[in-house]
Amino acid sequence: MKRREFFKNSSLLGLGAFFLGAESLKSNTIREEFRHKKTKNIIFMVSDGMSSGTLAMSDIYSKRILGKPSAWLGAYQDDLMQRGLMDMASKTSIVTDSAAASSSWGGGHRVPNGNLNIGAKGEEYEPILQKFKKAGKKVGCVTTVPITHATPAGFCVNIKSRSDQAVIAEKYATLDFDVMMGGGQKYFDPKSRKDKKDMYAVFTKKGYHVAKNKSEMLKAQPNQKLLGVFTEDSLPYSVDAKTLGTDKTTPNLLDLTQKAIEQMKSHSNGFVLQVEAGKVDWAAHGNDFAALLFDQLMFDSCVNHVLDFAKKDGNTLVVITSDHGNANPGLVYGKGVDPLFDNTVSIKHSNDWILQGIRTDATEKEIIDRLYENSGNMKISTEHAKEIIAYYKDVQAEDGIYNPKHLPFQLLSKMQYGHFHVGWNSMNHTSDYTELAMYGPGSEHMKSFMRNDQMHNFLLKVAEVDMLNKA
Amino acid sequence: MKRREFFKNSSLLGLGAFFLGAESLKSNTIREEFRHKKTKNIIFMVSDGMSSGTLAMSDIYSKRILGKPSAWLGAYQDDLMQRGLMDMASKTSIVTDSAAASSSWGGGHRVPNGNLNIGAKGEEYEPILQKFKKAGKKVGCVTTVPITHATPAGFCVNIKSRSDQAVIAEKYATLDFDVMMGGGQKYFDPKSRKDKKDMYAVFTKKGYHVAKNKSEMLKAQPNQKLLGVFTEDSLPYSVDAKTLGTDKTTPNLLDLTQKAIEQMKSHSNGFVLQVEAGKVDWAAHGNDFAALLFDQLMFDSCVNHVLDFAKKDGNTLVVITSDHGNANPGLVYGKGVDPLFDNTVSIKHSNDWILQGIRTDATEKEIIDRLYENSGNMKISTEHAKEIIAYYKDVQAEDGIYNPKHLPFQLLSKMQYGHFHVGWNSMNHTSDYTELAMYGPGSEHMKSFMRNDQMHNFLLKVAEVDMLNKA
Repeated sequence: MKRREFFKNSSLLGLGAFFLGAESLKSNTIREEFRHKKTKNIIFMVSDGMSSGTLAMSDIYSKRILGKPSAWLGAYQDDLMQRGLMDMASKTSIVTDSAAASSSWGGGHRVPNGNLNIGAKGEEYEPILQKFKKAGKKVGCVTTVPITHATPAGFCVNIKSRSDQAVIAEKYATLDFDVMMGGGQKYFDPKSRKDKKDMYAVFTKKGYHVAKNKSEMLKAQPNQKLLGVFTEDSLPYSVDAKTLGTDKTTPNLLDLTQKAIEQMKSHSNGFVLQVEAGKVDWAAHGNDFAALLFDQLMFDSCVNHVLDFAKKDGNTLVVITSDHGNANPGLVYGKGVDPLFDNTVSIKHSNDWILQGIRTDATEKEIIDRLYENSGNMKISTEHAKEIIAYYKDVQAEDGIYNPKHLPFQLLSKMQYGHFHVGWNSMNHTSDYTELAMYGPGSEHMKSFMRNDQMHNFLLKVAEVDMLNKA
Repeated sequence: MKRREFFKNSSLLGLGAFFLGAESLKSNTIREEFRHKKTKNIIFMVSDGMSSGTLAMSDIYSKRILGKPSAWLGAYQDDLMQRGLMDMASKTSIVTDSAAASSSWGGGHRVPNGNLNIGAKGEEYEPILQKFKKAGKKVGCVTTVPITHATPAGFCVNIKSRSDQAVIAEKYATLDFDVMMGGGQKYFDPKSRKDKKDMYAVFTKKGYHVAKNKSEMLKAQPNQKLLGVFTEDSLPYSVDAKTLGTDKTTPNLLDLTQKAIEQMKSHSNGFVLQVEAGKVDWAAHGNDFAALLFDQLMFDSCVNHVLDFAKKDGNTLVVITSDHGNANPGLVYGKGVDPLFDNTVSIKHSNDWILQGIRTDATEKEIIDRLYENSGNMKISTEHAKEIIAYYKDVQAEDGIYNPKHLPFQLLSKMQYGHFHVGWNSMNHTSDYTELAMYGPGSEHMKSFMRNDQMHNFLLKVAEVDMLNKA
């Protein structure tokens, strides 16, 4: 039988969703179509610190609990996106931090860990959103961490140290960018800033609509420049926000993404937007499974919204990726792991919320009840409750217990192993290559493997902005 | 500027290896070419239990130490391969074992963990190599673990329990397959088998050339059926074989792969070969970094050889994947991780070899020296040496210390954290989706996401073998 006939005939065999011939031809047609479209807009989406297992677990949850694939992997299943792996090493290490990672994309050069678009010898690399702004596009960033944090900052500014977030807020005020939203009031509010500068006033004076809650954000007029700073530090974890209902006043990442696109989509020269799920990384640092899973799922809601927008728009390139692995979590083999995983549906709160709220005089019963009620009916022994209490009593003598770095994240995560069966390889970034996906015009130029510092020129090139870095 | 002109002009900008326009067109041309080729041969390559981090670390080692990308990711870089993710869940669990995993491909149905092509109600699913054999192809398997182990067996036989390896050896003798090579003498040798059957004699009687070492293997005539069983249980880890020079007498996975292809490549109807790096999984179970890294690199040498063969042949589909994650290792962020990683070049032996060789009366100095000499100049304290010795003294009283399950793998791996900075999330399989890559005719039909049980029909369909499972 001839090859063509075979594929034609085999469609008669009733293979359900498994049509090789027709669908793969269709997908190639889609890619073919992109060749004749313009890359007018770019939406660059980062799930910060997302290991391969984080992505898989969010898809498993989607399928088992929500009854549909995640938007990200669903788009793979429908063959709408190209896949690649990205090597995210920094100038100084195989394992990058978020500043060097975002700089590699934003400035097109690998820089030392901790730096934002400043090379080892002090070289300054022009950040990509400054270039796109010069080219006439609207530009912006939204994130769940302070808007001055490493990942948005890597697309926006040059500064030696990522930790100078108060300075980064000042630099933002000079950029004239169109939408900047996330947490980080302490870097804008005169009451929190050491220099007592009122950064909100500075932005207002420059014509920005400044929003500190959801309703203020929604009042921004299309095409009005928008600064949104909604929380002291980071936005709440998705699982906590949902349970507490704070989503009504504090926008979540999907609200921010929708609003940012609304603000910029009618601009004739197009827009470039970075969307960051910054607390997927924080959750991984805390080995905080509930926080990680539901923030990744929130990111996936944003992927869903953005892909819908891009499909309708036709001239939008969507890039979806992560900046490095973190803690490489995964559901671990063993009897009963499936019901344990399904039980995550009853989780009410992150470990962060659970641990932040423990008083130093808590009783064993209070600890036991708190975990049962909030961590998916997790049962702990009196011995374990004592261990947790002891930790608080000891720490209080040393340092403020509400500093996240002093909360017993690892202790709790290890206790949860029997409850969730999720393992973690560390509490820090890993050398894993990151998942990279693209949809839309420009994606047809993507290769299956990319170095992080190639992304800068890639984006400029597909958008036909003639400000490429020289090799 | 018009899009086409822009891409033409930008090739003048000297972007080094970064030519978007020309190369991506070229790659699409290659895929276009596959459409007009036959999938006559299939080489299905499995790095068993390879987490995403395992693949990344092998590529990092290749680039930093060997000065070139791994063959696998190099083929991504050159845009020669399509990428996908594969959901490997079994019938009974999100997290599969290797038997259910190989059965999902081999029989086209998800089965309970531990089963080989036998469903939950006893259904038998015809293994794919039996189908390809019926269709007139030569078929075979090579592996570093016993040839009767789960991954090769999943392509060959139906049996309720993967652990019945002596029975699997008997089943193999009825199949008339063309090349079966790996370890596992204890399942063939009358001295080791409970029933005292001489399986070698059975195979010889059926016309097989039976090889027990490398020179015997090399003597097999092309087109002669070949059984190769080289070690009592599994083949040695690559790092140990190299240091000890046992490669001269015991073939490594590359030798097996080369010989298997040689044996079958001239067959007019083509061949189907499974190549398994089975001990990548064992190394992950032992959190044995040296074993893991160098067995993955050995697998990569096989990828290199197979891709070379497929490029020249033109009618060979190469599938490269893993059956599940295991232990999700990764180099963890921290100061000095780069030199620590580079120091792996001085590793002489696996933890398995190091721990197997410790006598119960070893002195502290002997332990300290043994680790320094064999584990990349790792220095341990007298306290740590005492811990290791104590383990042997205690365990001996309980059970044979040379049972791998009783060696202090985790203890040593934890001590090595400061030396290699590699973290592990467990000592078992994980829910990660696996990396899937394809090269050659048929690969143009691959989607970016695949369920494991779709692979069976996929392979039959692209090879135009009309024995598809019904939905």
